[in-house]
Amino acid sequence: LLDDAGLIRPARGYEIVVTVDALVAGVHFFPDDPPASIARKALAVNLSDLAAKGAKPEGFVLSLVLPSGWTEDWLAAFATGLASIASESGCPLIGGDTVSTSGPLMLSITAFGSVPAGRMVPRSGARPGDLVLVSGTIGDGALGLKVHGPDKPGWVSHLGEAQRAFLADRYLHPLPRLALAVGLQGHASAAMDVSDGLVGDLGKLLKASGVGAEIDLDAIPLSEAARAAIMADPALAELAWTGGDDYEILCTASEMEYPSLVAAAQAAGIALTRIGHVTDASGVAVYREGGRARGFARGSFAHF
Amino acid sequence: LLDDAGLIRPARGYEIVVTVDALVAGVHFFPDDPPASIARKALAVNLSDLAAKGAKPEGFVLSLVLPSGWTEDWLAAFATGLASIASESGCPLIGGDTVSTSGPLMLSITAFGSVPAGRMVPRSGARPGDLVLVSGTIGDGALGLKVHGPDKPGWVSHLGEAQRAFLADRYLHPLPRLALAVGLQGHASAAMDVSDGLVGDLGKLLKASGVGAEIDLDAIPLSEAARAAIMADPALAELAWTGGDDYEILCTASEMEYPSLVAAAQAAGIALTRIGHVTDASGVAVYREGGRARGFARGSFAHF
Repeated sequence: LLDDAGLIRPARGYEIVVTVDALVAGVHFFPDDPPASIARKALAVNLSDLAAKGAKPEGFVLSLVLPSGWTEDWLAAFATGLASIASESGCPLIGGDTVSTSGPLMLSITAFGSVPAGRMVPRSGARPGDLVLVSGTIGDGALGLKVHGPDKPGWVSHLGEAQRAFLADRYLHPLPRLALAVGLQGHASAAMDVSDGLVGDLGKLLKASGVGAEIDLDAIPLSEAARAAIMADPALAELAWTGGDDYEILCTASEMEYPSLVAAAQAAGIALTRIGHVTDASGVAVYREGGRARGFARGSFAHF
Repeated sequence: LLDDAGLIRPARGYEIVVTVDALVAGVHFFPDDPPASIARKALAVNLSDLAAKGAKPEGFVLSLVLPSGWTEDWLAAFATGLASIASESGCPLIGGDTVSTSGPLMLSITAFGSVPAGRMVPRSGARPGDLVLVSGTIGDGALGLKVHGPDKPGWVSHLGEAQRAFLADRYLHPLPRLALAVGLQGHASAAMDVSDGLVGDLGKLLKASGVGAEIDLDAIPLSEAARAAIMADPALAELAWTGGDDYEILCTASEMEYPSLVAAAQAAGIALTRIGHVTDASGVAVYREGGRARGFARGSFAHF
């Protein structure tokens, strides 16, 4: 990077969506995770935010804070991982700053995407009667963290090798749902990505929109590996619904827009599952499991 | 901030200039510096980059990495300092992420400015025959760091109280030269801000432009306090020329554009001093002091 500054050139009639996420070693990843995985995840979590806003990636800037004891090899592997996801997602590095610290490794990425003017999908657009939808499967990230981490709980031994690998990979390498962006832009009333857990993030969306929801917990899409884990330990269902690191898209759409949105998702090869509907009970999310209402110990929602 | 994402809406025919700077406690500021000063400096160093590119501030995003033991009081004072510089400079906070760390306090700011399309002032535009100019005074930041820091060298005692306060303030509270941006945009051939020391930063500008320069060290503008410090210890002249944290503008302009650029600076109340000229000796900066050539132990330039 020859200059102090990068340039973003939005096409006429487009606006720039900006998102920022910081990741700290020991909090958001393990210090000894593969450097390429750390790099991929740092950009992916930002791309996931852009996708949820209906935006097309245009570029990003990186602040890299290196701990004492970093090596050239580590940095080379990190740069390679970053270059590969940047290239796959069409989101080039346009600026950066590297400093060193006595503390842990830290990265902050600010990513830019473009949307037609006035078309960013807000968090605040959900209306009573809208359907609540979620992409992909939920809970793999939180279960994957347990599988990948140093202290493996007992249920991990009940999973097959492929199941363990699947979950760990979902934690390490989130897949931003960029292919869903244009569909969301045209048809979703509200959207955000699921980074802090479905239950907690739905609470934020409802609060921003000033509405409530009724959610059918049995409808929440689970991977085959997550089902196996929950079979081994039924208490894991709550972890799946409330845990973080899914990077799927949570959105709402009117009954009228729903078929077009699902068609757009199908064309992009992404499953979109209906899990409930929006109500006018401002701020109150009612969750039902086997027909019975239940609450959660964490998240911003109604307790029972 | 209700949403995951902020929006930048450039006016028609404008592009967005992006700059990022990270600051770490113990490296770029002292952990016990006033929180409002830390906040001001973090945004100011980014605004300084925008000014050097000829850009008008449009907004910024913040990653704030808090160490264990942070307090609500600290954060409130930090937010107040940040809000005041954001308001003064017309550069609102449009997004952010806050995480915690076991390490030191860290901040990363990505700032956005707008320029008419194709008019960002590059680092690479200096041409042989151009004049080399610098705004304000040089060396106050590096001298101010010594005055402000815990281990005060002997020469500090030779300064009056007002001189010490002036230098410490220049270190703690850099003043981004935003009022110079439009003048640079119209009349400078190359520009950057002086953050890592005049000699080193000039080396970067010359390298990016593929040119050399002859610089008259005696012409480098010094504050009255810096002169007093150098009087007490003549070795400090080199610190002034090579030390960091000035956040002044280093630029080049053709002889033809020079009068208009100086007039624009005068109208903005900012001194702009001619310190040398650009040569075709690619990458070679010749420094003269009392008419004799000399080199420096640090910086990217020719040694003698």
